[in-house]
Amino acid sequence: MTYSDLEQRFKELGDLRHAQAMLNWDEAVMMPTGGGRTRAESMATLAAMAHRLITAGETAELIEAAAAQDELGPWQRANLREIKTIWRNATALPESLVIARSRASSLCEQAWRTARPAHDWQSIEPLLTEVVELTRQVATCLGEAAGLDPYDALLDQYETGVNQAMIDPIFAELKAFLPDFVEQVIAAQGSVHPFPKSIGAARQGNLGRALMAKLGFDFERGRLDTSHHPFCGGDPDDTRITTRYDEQEFLSSMMAVLHETGHALYQQGLPRQWRGQPVGNSLGAVIHESQSLLMEMQVCRSREFVEFAAPLIRQHLDAGSNDPAWDVDNLHRHSIRVAKGFIRVDADEVTYPLHVILRYELERALLSGDLTVARIPEAWNEKMQAYLQIDTRDNLADGCMQDVHWFGGLIGYFPTYTLGALTAAQLFARAKLDEPGIEASVAQGDFAPLLTWLRKNIHVKGALRQADELIVEVTGAPLGTDAFRAHLQSRYLSAG
Amino acid sequence: MTYSDLEQRFKELGDLRHAQAMLNWDEAVMMPTGGGRTRAESMATLAAMAHRLITAGETAELIEAAAAQDELGPWQRANLREIKTIWRNATALPESLVIARSRASSLCEQAWRTARPAHDWQSIEPLLTEVVELTRQVATCLGEAAGLDPYDALLDQYETGVNQAMIDPIFAELKAFLPDFVEQVIAAQGSVHPFPKSIGAARQGNLGRALMAKLGFDFERGRLDTSHHPFCGGDPDDTRITTRYDEQEFLSSMMAVLHETGHALYQQGLPRQWRGQPVGNSLGAVIHESQSLLMEMQVCRSREFVEFAAPLIRQHLDAGSNDPAWDVDNLHRHSIRVAKGFIRVDADEVTYPLHVILRYELERALLSGDLTVARIPEAWNEKMQAYLQIDTRDNLADGCMQDVHWFGGLIGYFPTYTLGALTAAQLFARAKLDEPGIEASVAQGDFAPLLTWLRKNIHVKGALRQADELIVEVTGAPLGTDAFRAHLQSRYLSAG
Repeated sequence: MTYSDLEQRFKELGDLRHAQAMLNWDEAVMMPTGGGRTRAESMATLAAMAHRLITAGETAELIEAAAAQDELGPWQRANLREIKTIWRNATALPESLVIARSRASSLCEQAWRTARPAHDWQSIEPLLTEVVELTRQVATCLGEAAGLDPYDALLDQYETGVNQAMIDPIFAELKAFLPDFVEQVIAAQGSVHPFPKSIGAARQGNLGRALMAKLGFDFERGRLDTSHHPFCGGDPDDTRITTRYDEQEFLSSMMAVLHETGHALYQQGLPRQWRGQPVGNSLGAVIHESQSLLMEMQVCRSREFVEFAAPLIRQHLDAGSNDPAWDVDNLHRHSIRVAKGFIRVDADEVTYPLHVILRYELERALLSGDLTVARIPEAWNEKMQAYLQIDTRDNLADGCMQDVHWFGGLIGYFPTYTLGALTAAQLFARAKLDEPGIEASVAQGDFAPLLTWLRKNIHVKGALRQADELIVEVTGAPLGTDAFRAHLQSRYLSAG
Repeated sequence: MTYSDLEQRFKELGDLRHAQAMLNWDEAVMMPTGGGRTRAESMATLAAMAHRLITAGETAELIEAAAAQDELGPWQRANLREIKTIWRNATALPESLVIARSRASSLCEQAWRTARPAHDWQSIEPLLTEVVELTRQVATCLGEAAGLDPYDALLDQYETGVNQAMIDPIFAELKAFLPDFVEQVIAAQGSVHPFPKSIGAARQGNLGRALMAKLGFDFERGRLDTSHHPFCGGDPDDTRITTRYDEQEFLSSMMAVLHETGHALYQQGLPRQWRGQPVGNSLGAVIHESQSLLMEMQVCRSREFVEFAAPLIRQHLDAGSNDPAWDVDNLHRHSIRVAKGFIRVDADEVTYPLHVILRYELERALLSGDLTVARIPEAWNEKMQAYLQIDTRDNLADGCMQDVHWFGGLIGYFPTYTLGALTAAQLFARAKLDEPGIEASVAQGDFAPLLTWLRKNIHVKGALRQADELIVEVTGAPLGTDAFRAHLQSRYLSAG
């Protein structure tokens, strides 16, 4: 038994993960509703098979034998580190719990799709209660195995090393800074010309694809489709992103495409020689989100990007170049507009962290039992009133039912969005120091300097380093709020 | 250990089959080319996992224990019969051969997609040679386990009970009858008005969906998409059919949709209480093809169907009702036109069996080693010259490279098309005796009597009976050529 036998075993796991990723994509993009039950069963069985593969006695022996080998290189050692974490997390969970959680999450998520537009909390509550209860069991098992508090154990699943002790001071700073800052920005920002016409999905799709190609998306290894919520799925050689089209708001769809393209470029840029091995995968959700937000927020909502994109937008949307709605100024003002709204995924980067902090506080209470599922609508409304002065009592669809995450079994995931935003700001500040021409190139429609920097510093490293190590390695400092705050200050209050 | 433990195990196999079916669909309909290698690896691993599940020692014990139980009902006994066949076929093959064949077939099929339009036999030849060699090994192993000749063992995989001893006399009759008959039909048939305009894919798709709905396709449990070759995939509650669109030949796409809808209605009509168990599956390719051909050839190319469909066609294709091209007579003449052509999938029902007989003769020789892969183009041309007087020497894409089957590892499958056509004729003759109003209802656009008969006699039986038993049960006689010949005679030479 050698290290390479271990790789062979985890290559099989990678093959299973490919099937799971594609079936997940299919469920969100293609599956008719009648297929839901069979799909849930199939996903539960694939989860069970992955679990069996990892927890089989032979895997432990292979890990032990590989760990005793001296001649491993740095990538192999990092692969072994990742494998050990996967093994620890899998062996912490009984197979019955893995199956029960996969099935309950699939069914609850499917039910949510119809319950949400009907504001039907009553029908979803028992399903969500079961998902939360099973997730709590998972968190307890994982926490015991890793020596972590249960909620920390969930956080750790989505990005190794993330925990409440790290999040709390960061979120406290944001919570102290943002509410006043939001008011200042809203008071200071000028008005915008509304876009004068509705834009069909086909035109929007063509614009999205044109921009993706410019940014470096490889269409031989990926696609753009439509789904209810935009996401990036698939794997490095078959990366599938989605958006949705609102004929009255082309910018929303376009920005979703640019966001998901940031995810996609990370995925397509992963190290080719480590395909299918854990070390060849992307890091967790924080780093993934940093790549989407660096692209969307730092780059594609910049003045330079709009200068490049405006003619392309006018051309694809067949917009008259004489109408001031379509000029660079107005397009840019639209793309950095700040407003207090119901919906997290539609939020600007200034109010966004408040949406996340709300969810972080609620889901932590949910997991500990301090908050029952039944009380979620009330608690949600209280916090929305406090942070954004919005009443969600009569609009559950755009209140506590807006996000798929909890219904799909994702608790501990929300903080990664804001940690990702902070990471994006910190990385992009560094990129501009390393390559001072990046922004000028963007204005010319040349994304190569940006992509080259991202490839070299982030993408090709796969999971060689953990997220916290990577951030220090690239930026020289651990993750903090400084770069993010400086970015907000500069974009929203300095231009005047 | 009881029978129900065995069901639980095969439920997991059903869940794996669901994943395989969906990934197969995705590969043909959605996957970008760059995803091919990962997909091939994933499919090979899923095949290996299914193989492991079936061949595990515990499965044999479960089968033995279940077989010893007295109180099994007829569906359970039939399920056990199916399980035993699956077990025998799986245990006959070493896992390494399962993986090697899955991988080689995936890669050869992917390479065929680009080699075919380039007439590039040279690049595909070594890949196909490997696929044939691995298929030969599979056939030998299966044959030894089942006590069958290797080619019979492959035939048996696609429909239990089908073998050369049954096919040879049937094909001999057709080979004696058809060549002269084809000449008579071609000499007798009148001319047609060409359709006066090209029809966009969107309109054709809408027409297809409207007809599918009329026939009884449940869109809550299925979809229509586009692929290079039309097919029916997925499973009972998520049935996915495809077509392709040629703006100059809307009828070709429409007929493909109607054909695949026949497959789909079978799949959607399988017994709900046996989902995921082998006995709840459809029978093999002969019965499946009988359902598609009964729908396409027997029903949807009938005068009655065209009477119903003509106004719908004109409406969806925005065709002028005064143009004689769009009247019932001309539409019907188009839909039963006979011509000697290169392409099997475009062939009419009269010449079609000659395409199949050619492939049957070649693939048998290929498997036995009497024909080498290198000599396929030459042998193909010789038989096309003999049966249809067509020279394929300068057109490999429309000659021996036209069908995906061999490249994808399907040898022993082609005969099922013609056996399916004979079965369709025999079943429909019976249906008209049982329900004399079927054809008149079709002319009114009422497909309920037809679907009710199919549901009751075929669909809800799942795999309760084997194909040969089912044909006798429903029609009172084993499969023969009489009904098919009577149908051809009546449709093509009696109407005069």
